[in-house]
Amino acid sequence: MSQFLKVKTASEVLAIVKGIPPLASEAVALHAAVGRILAAPIRAPEAVPHFDRAVMDGYAVHARDTFGASETLPALLELSGEIRMGELSTQPIQTGSALAIPTGGMLPEGADAVVMVEYTQPLDEQTIEVTRPVAPGDNVLRRGEDIEEGQELFGVGSRLRAQDIGVLAALGIATVNVFRKPGIAVFSTGDEVVPVETRGLPPGKVRDINTHTLSSHLRQNGLAVSTFPIVPDSLEALTATCRTAMEDHDVILLSGGSSVGARDFTLRILDAFPGSELLVHGIAIRPGKPAILGRIGQKLFWGLPGQPMSALMICQAFVMPSLAALEGVGSSGDWRASGTAVSAVLSRQLPSVQGRTDYIPVILSRDETPHRAIPLFGKSAMISILARADGYVVIPEHVEGLDSGTGVEVHLFSARR
Amino acid sequence: MSQFLKVKTASEVLAIVKGIPPLASEAVALHAAVGRILAAPIRAPEAVPHFDRAVMDGYAVHARDTFGASETLPALLELSGEIRMGELSTQPIQTGSALAIPTGGMLPEGADAVVMVEYTQPLDEQTIEVTRPVAPGDNVLRRGEDIEEGQELFGVGSRLRAQDIGVLAALGIATVNVFRKPGIAVFSTGDEVVPVETRGLPPGKVRDINTHTLSSHLRQNGLAVSTFPIVPDSLEALTATCRTAMEDHDVILLSGGSSVGARDFTLRILDAFPGSELLVHGIAIRPGKPAILGRIGQKLFWGLPGQPMSALMICQAFVMPSLAALEGVGSSGDWRASGTAVSAVLSRQLPSVQGRTDYIPVILSRDETPHRAIPLFGKSAMISILARADGYVVIPEHVEGLDSGTGVEVHLFSARR
Repeated sequence: MSQFLKVKTASEVLAIVKGIPPLASEAVALHAAVGRILAAPIRAPEAVPHFDRAVMDGYAVHARDTFGASETLPALLELSGEIRMGELSTQPIQTGSALAIPTGGMLPEGADAVVMVEYTQPLDEQTIEVTRPVAPGDNVLRRGEDIEEGQELFGVGSRLRAQDIGVLAALGIATVNVFRKPGIAVFSTGDEVVPVETRGLPPGKVRDINTHTLSSHLRQNGLAVSTFPIVPDSLEALTATCRTAMEDHDVILLSGGSSVGARDFTLRILDAFPGSELLVHGIAIRPGKPAILGRIGQKLFWGLPGQPMSALMICQAFVMPSLAALEGVGSSGDWRASGTAVSAVLSRQLPSVQGRTDYIPVILSRDETPHRAIPLFGKSAMISILARADGYVVIPEHVEGLDSGTGVEVHLFSARR
Repeated sequence: MSQFLKVKTASEVLAIVKGIPPLASEAVALHAAVGRILAAPIRAPEAVPHFDRAVMDGYAVHARDTFGASETLPALLELSGEIRMGELSTQPIQTGSALAIPTGGMLPEGADAVVMVEYTQPLDEQTIEVTRPVAPGDNVLRRGEDIEEGQELFGVGSRLRAQDIGVLAALGIATVNVFRKPGIAVFSTGDEVVPVETRGLPPGKVRDINTHTLSSHLRQNGLAVSTFPIVPDSLEALTATCRTAMEDHDVILLSGGSSVGARDFTLRILDAFPGSELLVHGIAIRPGKPAILGRIGQKLFWGLPGQPMSALMICQAFVMPSLAALEGVGSSGDWRASGTAVSAVLSRQLPSVQGRTDYIPVILSRDETPHRAIPLFGKSAMISILARADGYVVIPEHVEGLDSGTGVEVHLFSARR
């Protein structure tokens, strides 16, 4: 380890992060599978529906018996019974006759359409009038029309959403193979950092913001997080905490070490673990340049700056994609775009420096169309800036600033709703 | 109860739903507060930072001692010591002298700026050269510059995001008053509905999709859900299950009752509870018209259609806002827009009927700018349509369809990422 590595660009770091292999797979019950990522493709083991179903209340008929029917010249059909919900239709339908059928009912043999009840009228107990013709297939969902048997449904790397769970439920797939979710250990270091509960904060000390912001961010994204007490600026203490945390976590997220000496500690921690590998040592971004990513066996080690705004931005922009990689996103070879960006135009000009990617917090104003992205300025040490922001705009490394009115994508923080 | 109510428009239903009062408030620990909604406003009990802090590594100085300094004519300052991280600076600074200070260190009395270490050079052990002037306040975050003591930070109805939790952590606010989150009971009814685990599905039967899609949707939005076994189409069984579920849940989400008789049951359930009130009986939307919302004391009762696509769309469009109202969104009088809509243009013309709001599932194609919304068509009984969709487009009630190329907002389903 410890060969000198130079600062990488944001896109270089993202390429590294997206190449991280997923964790092992595991079987989970369908009711716990939402948001999880498939480790094996799913094909339909059977057809949906597995019988011809009525999709309207009405009468199962031979469509041709209704051809030419109208208000003035209705078709007369013999009512030969009723199909009950959830029951097998054993009675085949005869030409010239109809069976009452509820939405979801099973079409009887011989029937090829359903006449909606709105277009019928009872003439007597045995006869109905049909006032509109139906074509074969009308108001019917045919066997396999929704999902065909053997159809490929979801590939490896698909994240299961509520409606995807519904497809699996329809097919009787009660457990699925998904990639394991990473367990994440979050802690802060710094002799100046004290617990949030500290009353009468001594001068020179600050409360532990990062453990709270980082764990909250991860939790709100449905990830499993453990937090650890603040670790003093000591290589021994840091290494010991990392060693403990690695026993039952896949990822270590350490922030701080903002004093000059402590910055080296995060790097030197890796030395304490044989076979560790330094993947990233500094990212050419603002805010947050001094970030470290290492790999210790299958475990990831992130060292983030102590600056709360920098730490949270790096978490959002780089740590989250690394966790997504562990969760199996991209295991299909196709890295799906996050759904949380919104188009807007810049309300003012934004300067930038070539060769560095800038992450600018913005307010998203939806009062006008197109929406406006209003940049927030302030010292990067200010936590209140982020609390006012709805999201951020990225100025790529090869761009020397953006003009007022430029169309941008606003990457939204978790919604305030 | 049971007075006849006519079908309401989508906006009428949303107005009713947004008027539902929030649940009682409770105190929660900061680490569990992300995503929760404030029941009391928060003011800053102290200033952040609570001392003048260096935001760069360098030297604390009197700014005026550096005025006119340059590469060719550096200012010479006496190095009178070092400020250590997290410690109180007791040594005031003298004119013509400097103290080494790390990022985050406390500025000594008399100093008003920090010279970045990059613009200094040690001349000998007691003297440094400064090659660039600093103005008062440079590289310093002054007491209260981030957050002033007494400043109003978050109003009632604010949803706490990760960075907001960071602001509270900085201020030492370890517990917050938030509205209680609703507990939701989800179950399906229907004699045709069988558990997902059913092997060899009998003709006429369907597996229980809705319990899975609805509970998954709610869980992915961070809500607490209990699911119940399938209830047969019997008023007694339904009423008994509702009575049990109401004991320890705030909301009942019943779907199904798609047979003709069972549809009346959902309405008649309310009659079994004295003082119940029917708020909505039918919504003029497609898909999903037959939806019922009732109030039983402080509890909400939703009766959704059995059609999986209709049930999930109504859940997304109407049930979620009702849960948000219970959670305290809108308690500020200001209903915040959800952050999950993306602008796009329609890829083709969409017909609609005046007086009805249409919810059209779409694929969001991000290959071009502007993004394209590609409508998905099919019978509303098809679950596979929703599994292909990224979100939906709403055609409001007073619009008779939308032309191809029209700008629309795509309401995203939970992200596939």
